[in-house]
Amino acid sequence: MRKILVIGSGKSSSYLIKYLLEKSIPENLHIIVGDIDIHNASKLINNHKHAQAITLDVFDKQSRQNAIENADIVISMLPARYHIEVAKDCLTYGKNMVTASYVSKEMEDLDMVAKNKGLVFMNEIGVDPGIDHMSAMKVIDSIRAKGGKMVLFESFAGGLVAPESDNNLWNYKFTWNPRNVVVAGQGSAAKFIQEGNYKYIPYHRLFRRTEFLEVDGYGRFEAYANRDSLKYQSVYGLDHIKTLYRGTMRRVGFSRAWNVFVQLGMTDDSYTIDDSENMSYRDFVNAFLPYSTTDSVELKFRLSLKIDQDDIVWEKFEELDIFNRNKMVGLIKATPAQILQKILMDSWTLDNDDKDMLVMYHKFGYELNGKMHQIDSTMVTLGEDMTYTAMAKTVGLPLAIATLAILNGTIVTPGVQIPITKEVYGPILSELEAFDIKFTEKEVPYLGYNPLNA
Amino acid sequence: MRKILVIGSGKSSSYLIKYLLEKSIPENLHIIVGDIDIHNASKLINNHKHAQAITLDVFDKQSRQNAIENADIVISMLPARYHIEVAKDCLTYGKNMVTASYVSKEMEDLDMVAKNKGLVFMNEIGVDPGIDHMSAMKVIDSIRAKGGKMVLFESFAGGLVAPESDNNLWNYKFTWNPRNVVVAGQGSAAKFIQEGNYKYIPYHRLFRRTEFLEVDGYGRFEAYANRDSLKYQSVYGLDHIKTLYRGTMRRVGFSRAWNVFVQLGMTDDSYTIDDSENMSYRDFVNAFLPYSTTDSVELKFRLSLKIDQDDIVWEKFEELDIFNRNKMVGLIKATPAQILQKILMDSWTLDNDDKDMLVMYHKFGYELNGKMHQIDSTMVTLGEDMTYTAMAKTVGLPLAIATLAILNGTIVTPGVQIPITKEVYGPILSELEAFDIKFTEKEVPYLGYNPLNA
Repeated sequence: MRKILVIGSGKSSSYLIKYLLEKSIPENLHIIVGDIDIHNASKLINNHKHAQAITLDVFDKQSRQNAIENADIVISMLPARYHIEVAKDCLTYGKNMVTASYVSKEMEDLDMVAKNKGLVFMNEIGVDPGIDHMSAMKVIDSIRAKGGKMVLFESFAGGLVAPESDNNLWNYKFTWNPRNVVVAGQGSAAKFIQEGNYKYIPYHRLFRRTEFLEVDGYGRFEAYANRDSLKYQSVYGLDHIKTLYRGTMRRVGFSRAWNVFVQLGMTDDSYTIDDSENMSYRDFVNAFLPYSTTDSVELKFRLSLKIDQDDIVWEKFEELDIFNRNKMVGLIKATPAQILQKILMDSWTLDNDDKDMLVMYHKFGYELNGKMHQIDSTMVTLGEDMTYTAMAKTVGLPLAIATLAILNGTIVTPGVQIPITKEVYGPILSELEAFDIKFTEKEVPYLGYNPLNA
Repeated sequence: MRKILVIGSGKSSSYLIKYLLEKSIPENLHIIVGDIDIHNASKLINNHKHAQAITLDVFDKQSRQNAIENADIVISMLPARYHIEVAKDCLTYGKNMVTASYVSKEMEDLDMVAKNKGLVFMNEIGVDPGIDHMSAMKVIDSIRAKGGKMVLFESFAGGLVAPESDNNLWNYKFTWNPRNVVVAGQGSAAKFIQEGNYKYIPYHRLFRRTEFLEVDGYGRFEAYANRDSLKYQSVYGLDHIKTLYRGTMRRVGFSRAWNVFVQLGMTDDSYTIDDSENMSYRDFVNAFLPYSTTDSVELKFRLSLKIDQDDIVWEKFEELDIFNRNKMVGLIKATPAQILQKILMDSWTLDNDDKDMLVMYHKFGYELNGKMHQIDSTMVTLGEDMTYTAMAKTVGLPLAIATLAILNGTIVTPGVQIPITKEVYGPILSELEAFDIKFTEKEVPYLGYNPLNA
C-alpha cells in the first residue's frame, strides 16, 4: 500500500479526498488525513477502509515528522505560510510534496536541494494558480509547435455563484475567503502590457477600467486587472509579448457598484475605526461622508458618489441594508475592510442549497505565416453542493491527479516547480476532462487590444 | 560669552543665524555654526566677530561630542531622524537643546532623564509645528481663562508663493521640500471630528473634500485635511471637543487640479516604473491611460478625467508641459511620485527674485454663558528674498527666540516638550510681533461645522 498524507481537511479538501478514496482500491493506496481538528477529516473519509484520520498539529514537530516519515508522498492543504516546515521535513525524509499555493521565496530556496535528492515539489497546482497555468501552456506550446509567435495573452478567472443560485442584485456570493474579496487589488498599482506599453492602474481606478467577456451559454462577464499581470511573463516564455493582461471575473455591474465602496474608503484595511464596536451599519457609512445637519446619510451617499436614485447601483446598496440604524458592527477596533466584510457576509454567504461556479477565460493572439490569429479558450465548472463545490473540485482534482502521477512515476522531473511543462499538464488536463473540467477553444478574429477594431 | 551651537546650516537656518548674530553683542553670545559642508555656514555668518563656522559631521561621534560639550545650548537643524544622537550627547554633557521637529518616540523616551537633570529639550518650535501650537494655545488659554468651553478648533497652514510672485495657473511654487508636497496625504485615511462624529477621508478623495477660507487682504484659499487632525487633541486639552480639524492651505483651484494626478496614480511612491529613464513626459502620462490606436494622450487624459477642453483645469496641465514628447524623465527606476516631482520642479521652482508666503488660519468656537462664540485668527508672513524666505523666518525666529529665552532663564521648566505653555508662548509670540509675525483675531458668528448656516 502506498501511503498518501493529506495535511489539512478544510473546505478545499473535499474533492481531493473523494478522488483519492475512489482510487485507493485500484491503485492500492492508503490515505491518511491529518488535521488539528479530526472531525472534518473523519467526516470526509467516512470510515473508508483504505483511509485513516489522525490528529495532526503542524506546530508539533515530533508528530508532524512522524506522519511525514511514515508517508510515501505529502499533500499540504495548510495555509500557504505553513508549507515550508512540511517541505523541510519532506527533504529530511526524502518525500515528494504537492501544494496548491504560490511558490514562496523560502520554498524556491529549496529547489537545489530537492533536485539533488531527486524529489518533486509540485506547487500552484490547484485552479488559480493551477488549471490556469496548465490550460494556458497547453495552447501556447501548441501555437509554438506549429511555428506561431505569441503576441497577446490575456487570462481571466473568477469564483462566482452558479446561475441557478444567482439571486441578488450584485450577482455575487462569497465562494472563497471573503477577506480576499474585500481587499482585492489593494497595494501598488495594477501593472500590465498593452500593445507594447506598460500600463498602471491605481487601486482607486481599478474597478472603473474593466473589460467585457462573453462565455457561450453563460452570457456576459466583466474583468478587472490583477495586481501583477507580468508575474509569469518569463516563466511562460512571453518576454517579448505585446499584450499581457491577467484579470478577475465578475458579473457585469459588480465592479461599478464595488467602486463605490472603494471611493468612500470602506475597503481600507490599514487603520482601525474609533469605537467601531458600538457603531450601527449606518454610522459606519456616515463616517465616510461629510457632516450635514439637513441631509440624510442616504442623500449624502448618493450626492457624494453621483448616484441617481433610480440607478440600479443604488438598489444594490439598499439590498445590502448598509443604512440600517439597528444592525450593529459589534467588532472591536475593526478596520473599514473588516466591518465591510461583516456587512457583506450578511448578504453574500452561500445558502445550504446554493451552488458555486468557477469560470476561466484565456485569449491567445499569435502570428503565423504573416497572418494574425486568435484563440479564445473558456472553461466553466459548476459546484454540486456546499461540500463538493466548484472551487473544491477545481482545486482538489489537479492536486490529487498530480499526486498519483508523481507516485506512479508519470511526473518525474525533480525540483520546486509549477505545472507548466507538457510532462505535467498533459496527463492532468486529459484526466480532468473526464470530470467535466474542460476548455472550449475557438478561433476568433485577432483584434489586438483594441475594441474599436471590432 | 555664552556659546550657542547651531548644527546644520541649510535653507531654514538663515533667519535663525541672522537673529542670533544681531543679539550676539548685546547678549554677549558666541555663535558656532557646524555643518558637514562649511561653505553655507561661513556664508551665513559672514565673518561676524561673534561667530564661527566649523566642519561638523554628525556621524563623527568624537567631533560631535566635542562641539556639544563646548557649547552652552544646542540648536539642531538636522533632518529629524538625526536629532536623537545630539539629544543623547546633550544629556551626557548637561546641555539644553532646541529643535523644530516633531517629537519622535526616541526623543519622548528621554523625557524623564532630561527632567531629572533639569534640562529643557524644546521641540516643534518652528512654524508648523511651532507657531501653530503657540498661537492656538494662547487663544485657547484666554477662552478658558474667561470661563469659555471650547467646542470647535480648526487650524490651517500653508507655504505658498507671495502674491507678487504668483504667476502660474496653479498659484503655487515649491517653497519647501517638493517631495513632501507630492506625497502629501498618502497613507491611511485622513481622520478628524465634525460635530461629534469621527470622519475619515481616503487619500483618493482628499483633494475633493476641501473647504474655503478668506484672509483679509489676501483673498480666498482652500484647505484639505491633514492625515491626523487628532494628534494634539489631548495635548491641547480638547478631549471632548465637538469639531477638530487640521488642514493644509492652497490657493483655490489647486486641489481640483492636483486631484487629477492623484486619480491617475501619478503621485504613487510605492513602486517603480519600468524603463523610467527612457520615458518622455508624454510616455509617463500615457502609462496611466488606456491604450488606444485612435485617441491622442491629450484626448485620453481629458476623457478619463472628464475635463472639458475649455476648462481652466486643462490649461494647468498644458502649462506644466506634461504632454511633451521630447522632454525626458531621465531617472533610473523612479517611482511615479519621483517622476512627477521632476516634472513639477521644471515649473514650480522659485525664481531668484521670487518671494514666498506663509499663511496660517485658526478657528476657535466656544460656549460662554450659554452663548456660542467664534474667534478667527489669521497670520500672513511674506519672504524678503530667496535666502530670507517667509519659511526660514517663521521656522528660524521662534527657534532663536526660544534658545535665548532658555539661556536667559525665562523658559525653565525641564523635560522633552513642545511650546504649549504660557511660560513658552508668552515671550516668544510677543517678540515675534516685533518681526511682523502677528495674528489678527476677530470675532465672527459661530456657525459650527455647517456652511448651510451661513
